[in-house]
Amino acid sequence: MDNEWGREDWEKALKKVVCHLESIEKRVISLFLERAQFRRNRAAYQKGRSGYKGIDGESLLDIRLLKYEISDAEDGRYTMPEEVSFNKDLPPPKRKVSRGKADRYSGVVLEEGNRVDLSRQIFSSYIEFLDHLCVHGDDEQHGSATEWDIPALRALSERIHYGAMYVAECKFNMDPEGCAELIRKKDREGLKKKLRRPEIELAILKRVRLKAEDMQKDENPDVRRIISPDIIVRFYRNSIIPLTLDGEVEYLLHKKV
Amino acid sequence: MDNEWGREDWEKALKKVVCHLESIEKRVISLFLERAQFRRNRAAYQKGRSGYKGIDGESLLDIRLLKYEISDAEDGRYTMPEEVSFNKDLPPPKRKVSRGKADRYSGVVLEEGNRVDLSRQIFSSYIEFLDHLCVHGDDEQHGSATEWDIPALRALSERIHYGAMYVAECKFNMDPEGCAELIRKKDREGLKKKLRRPEIELAILKRVRLKAEDMQKDENPDVRRIISPDIIVRFYRNSIIPLTLDGEVEYLLHKKV
Repeated sequence: MDNEWGREDWEKALKKVVCHLESIEKRVISLFLERAQFRRNRAAYQKGRSGYKGIDGESLLDIRLLKYEISDAEDGRYTMPEEVSFNKDLPPPKRKVSRGKADRYSGVVLEEGNRVDLSRQIFSSYIEFLDHLCVHGDDEQHGSATEWDIPALRALSERIHYGAMYVAECKFNMDPEGCAELIRKKDREGLKKKLRRPEIELAILKRVRLKAEDMQKDENPDVRRIISPDIIVRFYRNSIIPLTLDGEVEYLLHKKV
Repeated sequence: MDNEWGREDWEKALKKVVCHLESIEKRVISLFLERAQFRRNRAAYQKGRSGYKGIDGESLLDIRLLKYEISDAEDGRYTMPEEVSFNKDLPPPKRKVSRGKADRYSGVVLEEGNRVDLSRQIFSSYIEFLDHLCVHGDDEQHGSATEWDIPALRALSERIHYGAMYVAECKFNMDPEGCAELIRKKDREGLKKKLRRPEIELAILKRVRLKAEDMQKDENPDVRRIISPDIIVRFYRNSIIPLTLDGEVEYLLHKKV
């Protein structure tokens, strides 16, 4: 951590963190829109229905996600704090990844060893979200549907974990005393209140709605299914934003104060 | 092949094929825009510079693409005619994929055993395109850059191979006699002339320009790099459209007439 940073530097860093979060939005939305072109396809998420010979304990999505994550672990993806795998016990990196400790977007350095892992909650929220995002039923395109689930889950995970850890680190440093007191008291509600910024949340929801509209504006409804922006805004409001806030609190509660 | 189809049915099928091609456009463009957020990063495409211990003969992109393609081959991805892998000698599917012979979008059935493979040309065109798409230099984010190359290459491959094979099959059936004569004479130029539709090409370029503009319209230039639509339109004009046409000719030349 650069101990020379003053409050103004942390405010600037927070702005950069928020900018990066904003830059992930379009990617998240566009992956949802792609997934929505396929039916809900429940069987792709049910154990023993993957079509894989001899594999009964996992769904098609489970099998594919594990294979991708093994490959990415070897590539060194999970050496970055905001990249949290859904599977654990992955192989170590086979590749030397040269990256400093400071975040490439904001210059912030996280507290050593303090990592948030909301991957289980993210996974289950996403699967539930598919009920709202997709037309029910089965179109037998399980390969294509899960092909979009994987990057969508990853983009979500990056959005939430990056947000949680880097936002919390900045906000902590903007008022270390005030935060430390709440952390020592393990006051989750107090921390939530301190961290929450309703006006920023409203701005995010407004921006997400606009993007979801704009991104489908020139779309031909005979060619592609058009998704109501409400569905995506609701997922941001009910899952993405609250999970990020939960992660911020988690990160702070593990801080050495 | 449904021998009962008349000319009108083939015209309708062609419209559906073209609709599906249109539906891939936004995905292709959005992947280019994501890749463009990173520098050109030449080292990620050079052999022996992957950072992988003990691997000298392949680049980072080569290594990652092969791993993904092995995984996808096991999932049964390459049982679909429009999914052509960049690597050959991949493992057989481990999963039973149930899909009929008819294309899911248009109902068209391709000629048995007649497959087009332009993967080498697609790969080299894409790598060349990166010189125009990306800011030169190296930002050390080779993992993130190649993370976008892989879906971009796949989307391109699907666009070109699907277009080539299904468009050619429809156009052939709309005038089997006229096509057969040119095929027997191996008249590539004659076939190109017969297949080409300059007015459709212009419509595609116009649409791609509009999409590339619209998709970046609400983007904050402090948050994301904005890409000139010209760069993407040029790639469609100089590579994607000509490669698709080459593929159509290739498919017809291998037809049994």
